[in-house]
Amino acid sequence: MERCLVSEAYKNLESVVKLQGWIHKVRKLGRIAFVLLRDRTGIIQCVVDTKKFDIKDLKLESVVEIKGIVKQNKEKFEIQVGDIKIISKALDESPIELNKEDMELNIDTLIDNRVISMRNKKVSSIFKIETEIAHGFSEFLVKKDFTEIYTPKIVSEGAEGGTELFKVKYFDMDAYLAQSPQFYKQMMVSAGYERVFEIGHVYRAESHDTKRHLNEYISMDLEMGFIEDEMDLIKLEIQLLNYIFENLKKRCSESIEVLKVDIPTVENVPIMALSEAISILREKYNKTELTEDIDHEGEELIGKFVKEKYNSDFVFLTHYSKEKRPMYTMPCKEKLTHSFDLIFRGMEITTGGQRINNYNMLKQNMIDKGLNPESFKNYLDIFKLGMPPHGGLAIGLERITMKLLNLDNIREAAFFVRDKKRILP
Amino acid sequence: MERCLVSEAYKNLESVVKLQGWIHKVRKLGRIAFVLLRDRTGIIQCVVDTKKFDIKDLKLESVVEIKGIVKQNKEKFEIQVGDIKIISKALDESPIELNKEDMELNIDTLIDNRVISMRNKKVSSIFKIETEIAHGFSEFLVKKDFTEIYTPKIVSEGAEGGTELFKVKYFDMDAYLAQSPQFYKQMMVSAGYERVFEIGHVYRAESHDTKRHLNEYISMDLEMGFIEDEMDLIKLEIQLLNYIFENLKKRCSESIEVLKVDIPTVENVPIMALSEAISILREKYNKTELTEDIDHEGEELIGKFVKEKYNSDFVFLTHYSKEKRPMYTMPCKEKLTHSFDLIFRGMEITTGGQRINNYNMLKQNMIDKGLNPESFKNYLDIFKLGMPPHGGLAIGLERITMKLLNLDNIREAAFFVRDKKRILP
Repeated sequence: MERCLVSEAYKNLESVVKLQGWIHKVRKLGRIAFVLLRDRTGIIQCVVDTKKFDIKDLKLESVVEIKGIVKQNKEKFEIQVGDIKIISKALDESPIELNKEDMELNIDTLIDNRVISMRNKKVSSIFKIETEIAHGFSEFLVKKDFTEIYTPKIVSEGAEGGTELFKVKYFDMDAYLAQSPQFYKQMMVSAGYERVFEIGHVYRAESHDTKRHLNEYISMDLEMGFIEDEMDLIKLEIQLLNYIFENLKKRCSESIEVLKVDIPTVENVPIMALSEAISILREKYNKTELTEDIDHEGEELIGKFVKEKYNSDFVFLTHYSKEKRPMYTMPCKEKLTHSFDLIFRGMEITTGGQRINNYNMLKQNMIDKGLNPESFKNYLDIFKLGMPPHGGLAIGLERITMKLLNLDNIREAAFFVRDKKRILP
Repeated sequence: MERCLVSEAYKNLESVVKLQGWIHKVRKLGRIAFVLLRDRTGIIQCVVDTKKFDIKDLKLESVVEIKGIVKQNKEKFEIQVGDIKIISKALDESPIELNKEDMELNIDTLIDNRVISMRNKKVSSIFKIETEIAHGFSEFLVKKDFTEIYTPKIVSEGAEGGTELFKVKYFDMDAYLAQSPQFYKQMMVSAGYERVFEIGHVYRAESHDTKRHLNEYISMDLEMGFIEDEMDLIKLEIQLLNYIFENLKKRCSESIEVLKVDIPTVENVPIMALSEAISILREKYNKTELTEDIDHEGEELIGKFVKEKYNSDFVFLTHYSKEKRPMYTMPCKEKLTHSFDLIFRGMEITTGGQRINNYNMLKQNMIDKGLNPESFKNYLDIFKLGMPPHGGLAIGLERITMKLLNLDNIREAAFFVRDKKRILP
């Protein structure tokens, strides 16, 4: 007999089906017991005659096979059990109470027991949504004629020219883990693919320990050639986010309900120069210390401001200073750049911008930033051979998930957390 | 005016269009010149009046914008140029002749100049096909209710218990780059997702330098719960490969033509025990030294054998010995396992099998293999809490591409090569 998924049981009313899954809950009521069986598609109640089956054998979280007749009980479907076979018996009790709606665990217990905690409906819903965000990103870009690429994570230098790199012993060479696919995605534009994207891990050896940072995280990157300026990227990101959220509504309706997700609209998103945001923060919120960048508190306040004034969950901040942006950023006027951040509910989830596509300008910019062009020869050389105007952006997958689901800590949105103290599980 | 792609020019017959791309070739013929313009969708001939434009300025590989009228010339479309604007002038000559059909480069020149070599049609077609293979893999599995996962590449131990690991300095801990997502994909099955897949980099610090090995490569991994045995995986892989190849025919017809790809059929694939393959090699090919495993020459010969006897490009070899398979492999009879390899045109492209899902059996197997279960505690513990029978497989993306396209060296199918001597570009 073929396995029947929980979500399909209703199609077999009054027939015998074979279900397979985990024992979620057992409740004895005199001569019968209610066993909740859980598989990847849902949970169903199975009614067991305790004279025929010894309930003591049905330990929570054991994997079982249940054969029985599908019955309708008011609005719900249940199984009148004929046979139960234990496939894999749980040897221990679960260290956490999985069948509670809200487990209310502290973050360390949650992620120390990551694989087990994922069996809880609310936790598993986080990752169903997260994986569907990534899927929407990729699907939208494929429709827009982007090519998916897989660029190396073992690199010889940092894209941001920074020091926050993890070192790898690579045979007799010193190598590092890539901070971003920046150079490689630009190279792929130059290689003639024009429009490329990548969903992959990036590595930041930042030692601070906050609720917003991971040392290994999933970056959804894109890069495109033949743009006018960063406004083309901003427009693309608005379309992209709309697509992602509409796709979520279609494919994750159950998880959205379980987590009571408030899916934002992405319309009339305000776009303001960073300097304007800084003025607002100074004038409205008496936050006076900012000059050329915005801090975490500033992001929260400007998020609050645009929500109140424009009813928008998003705001694009543009025209960051040359000093604050990497050497490959296209300058704008004397001291600014064609760059932007996207703030979503008070947190930066995207950095993007137009890149320099002129060899001499890029080389000079490296020198101005105190970098040695020789160290970047491999990257720099591609600009000698015809490079279209181009730009790109990156969205942090765990960050957008965190803000969308209103999670308190980014670790809740990490499949397996890599932070300063954690390489397990 | 909106940019018109080369592939769309025919839709604008007798109208003015704006094209953007690279100068692929220039040929002067008296008072006119033929300029071939290349963008991501193709190449088109542009007819230039040399009295109006100085051809000397049109250096090969410069990025230009051309405005002109679309004309039909017999079967082909061309542009009668009204205006040319140089967007990004090539400062150098290309070190390789990109506009030749066959560049006939040696492998080092090809990959040292990777970004430039990709501008050649034959080379770029390789990666169009490769990215579409990955896309087909993912699309098929999503249809089959698999969830895409992103597991950590920074890990605390090797999945294969081996020594071929790259070491990472991770704060004050010793960490390694993941050899495979093996433990994590099994964990995600246990976490209740049941069916998961991942397309991502894996790392093998093997120091041999062959045409078949990379030290960083792209692994297309899947894992599924509630299987009977490895035959379920073999059946799934046959369906999967069929889907991938049919998808290629639909979406990559031009690249298939350019590279003259012979797309195989995946029907009636022979499935034979490894011992049978070894007997065949001994009896038919006088290859007598094999006992419990098959070597590269053996793979080639058995590939030849099944092609001749069954007209199949594929053969599944099954029942590898316990000794030769990792500790998580489900045993079969006394000394064998529920495992398989898939040989495609004489090269292994997949390893897969059923995994042990019983805690005590897995622990004992670790001990039998001389491994310390304490080192794998985090992984082993998940088997205490109800683990369905499960298994999985992995396909090497560069390998399947290499064999499909009949490439001589796997490096030709690597976006950016990471081998013993190479971390650039």
